[in-house]
Amino acid sequence: MMWDYEQPVDIRFGNGRVSEIGELARERGLRNGMLITSGHFVRDGFAQRLIDDSDGALTGMFSDFSPNPDVSEVDACAAVMRESGTGFVVAMGGGSAMDLAKAAASICLTEDSIADYHGTGKAMPQKHLPLIAVPTTAGTGSEVTCVSVLTNRALGKKAPIVSDGFFPNLAIVDPELTYSVPPYVTACTGMDVLSQAIEGYWSKGHQPICDACAVHAAKLVFRWLPVAVAEPRNAEARERMCEASVIAGLAFTLPKTTSSHACSFPLTNIHGIPHGEACGLTLDWFAHINADAQHGRVQEFARTLGFADVDAMADAIHDLKVTIGMRTGLKDLALSESQIDDLVRISRHPNLYNNPVDITDEMLRDMYEHLAATD
Amino acid sequence: MMWDYEQPVDIRFGNGRVSEIGELARERGLRNGMLITSGHFVRDGFAQRLIDDSDGALTGMFSDFSPNPDVSEVDACAAVMRESGTGFVVAMGGGSAMDLAKAAASICLTEDSIADYHGTGKAMPQKHLPLIAVPTTAGTGSEVTCVSVLTNRALGKKAPIVSDGFFPNLAIVDPELTYSVPPYVTACTGMDVLSQAIEGYWSKGHQPICDACAVHAAKLVFRWLPVAVAEPRNAEARERMCEASVIAGLAFTLPKTTSSHACSFPLTNIHGIPHGEACGLTLDWFAHINADAQHGRVQEFARTLGFADVDAMADAIHDLKVTIGMRTGLKDLALSESQIDDLVRISRHPNLYNNPVDITDEMLRDMYEHLAATD
Repeated sequence: MMWDYEQPVDIRFGNGRVSEIGELARERGLRNGMLITSGHFVRDGFAQRLIDDSDGALTGMFSDFSPNPDVSEVDACAAVMRESGTGFVVAMGGGSAMDLAKAAASICLTEDSIADYHGTGKAMPQKHLPLIAVPTTAGTGSEVTCVSVLTNRALGKKAPIVSDGFFPNLAIVDPELTYSVPPYVTACTGMDVLSQAIEGYWSKGHQPICDACAVHAAKLVFRWLPVAVAEPRNAEARERMCEASVIAGLAFTLPKTTSSHACSFPLTNIHGIPHGEACGLTLDWFAHINADAQHGRVQEFARTLGFADVDAMADAIHDLKVTIGMRTGLKDLALSESQIDDLVRISRHPNLYNNPVDITDEMLRDMYEHLAATD
Repeated sequence: MMWDYEQPVDIRFGNGRVSEIGELARERGLRNGMLITSGHFVRDGFAQRLIDDSDGALTGMFSDFSPNPDVSEVDACAAVMRESGTGFVVAMGGGSAMDLAKAAASICLTEDSIADYHGTGKAMPQKHLPLIAVPTTAGTGSEVTCVSVLTNRALGKKAPIVSDGFFPNLAIVDPELTYSVPPYVTACTGMDVLSQAIEGYWSKGHQPICDACAVHAAKLVFRWLPVAVAEPRNAEARERMCEASVIAGLAFTLPKTTSSHACSFPLTNIHGIPHGEACGLTLDWFAHINADAQHGRVQEFARTLGFADVDAMADAIHDLKVTIGMRTGLKDLALSESQIDDLVRISRHPNLYNNPVDITDEMLRDMYEHLAATD
């Protein structure tokens, strides 16, 4: 077996470590930092406190972007960074702040629009401002990946851009930042973590170091996600879910995700189901399908997690969804045949071809019909 | 819990990948490379073949060093590199070639002797030539660590130097290079891999990503080391042991090793027992001692590996040693009381203080007396 491994992101993990931004910037000779964060952290005063506590390292702030950042917002941010001579970028938030910051930190060193690179296949320039990523959910794993998901509303297009220049230089993972995340968001983002870990493991692009991370992360989610949802201030549960999230990021960034992520896109884009909940909706179904793939590797994964076999793990995924209040079906949407046709068609996303078992349209239709009939 | 993670070494793994040196150097703009390798690979013509196949990337060779490289040999190598304007370094071999190359690739950019930095506490300069590490055993893990172990024979001193500048830029792990390693060396180096994984896990400096790597690596050693020893040309066993070795390197390089490594030093330096065999000699003993440490973490490790508990894992370590022909005792050395005193005293190495349970002189004496009475 042949594999390559690169993990250029330095990680700092622990409660309160977000306060180290100033010190970490100084150690690296970084100045004139731009804090990119969502309006929520501006309104509650936390963004300003971070700037005040950074000993002068952070000098600007940008928060004018939407939950699915638009290419025009990336360009606007890059323009502000060019004008103010920004020397490095701190992205604090869920996926959106990091998606926007990765693209803006690269594009600001050019005169281009990010739209030139969005879904066009044109390779991003390699130069970029140093980027520090600070996730506030557990999470997207975006703090250790080289992907930025952007939308071009003018063209009706949502697509990822992948570039080695998008790897943050540093990820600061501070579990205390997740204490205020409400239970439903905790549940959705936690299901994303589980999907990343399991799909990273059974992806056709699997490799040993990512396998090890996948096992570690998935085990934590089964143990700690129900606690984090039920007790938002449980420090151990929040810490362990943040650990699971950053390690699941390592588990999937090189192998890439598979079928559940492929199917999540139409479920989110057409039916508005949050990303993690959409991934989790099909995860147990694909576990049954993939159970005996890869010469027993998936069975070994389930056993290492303490399950009797993959079917038992799939049952545990189902039970987890029930426990944490995630959908297990789509019956309330009263899907028509043509809506199911659309789901089948749009699920044929590139990630589907990373699945260890070939997924036919008939298999997708079976699955969506089953979900359509299930509460 | 607070932890930092950095893993700056890019890894290329797979049969035949040593032939990519020329291409990888070119991609990185590296020229005028010096191949540092042991006389063995010079005599059998393999070193020259690598140079010939490198498309001009490798232009020099240095092999004039001993199995425990001396500081004078590092200085001599650095002098050759200065004279020939070496632009990057390829270290191919077991631990020795990598130990020497790490130090020489740093010191050659100064006018200093490495002796100034060896056991003196003086920090190494950060600048260094780009280094590609190619291990030929499974192994020391040195291809992913920032440690160089050197000897100063004039002063009778053997000590590690640790420097961030010692991390190779690239590790090429090619299992085919290990096919010719004889069974006894395979067994010794494999026991080192197991010790690194287990000690990295229970070290006071443990952290989650390294934990995940430790579980993965240890599992592979229990499964594949007996096969690699019994069937040196078994491709899967060699590949899996190389995978275990590089991932065990990741597992221990940040947490550091503990008691078994501490005790291995006098066993090697005084009694000439090879490093890995010396580590393995005490590994099951310390497993029993550490079984209930860290609030059940060590028990969880054993269970994740498929053992009923840590005592069962310790028994499996013992059985593994018997199967692969490693020592399980020291009776043949007919140790005197004063020799046992020396072992106890010299085992009080800094690594001993990373052990999760405090180790007293009485515990060390008990252990060495037991080993002295055991075949």
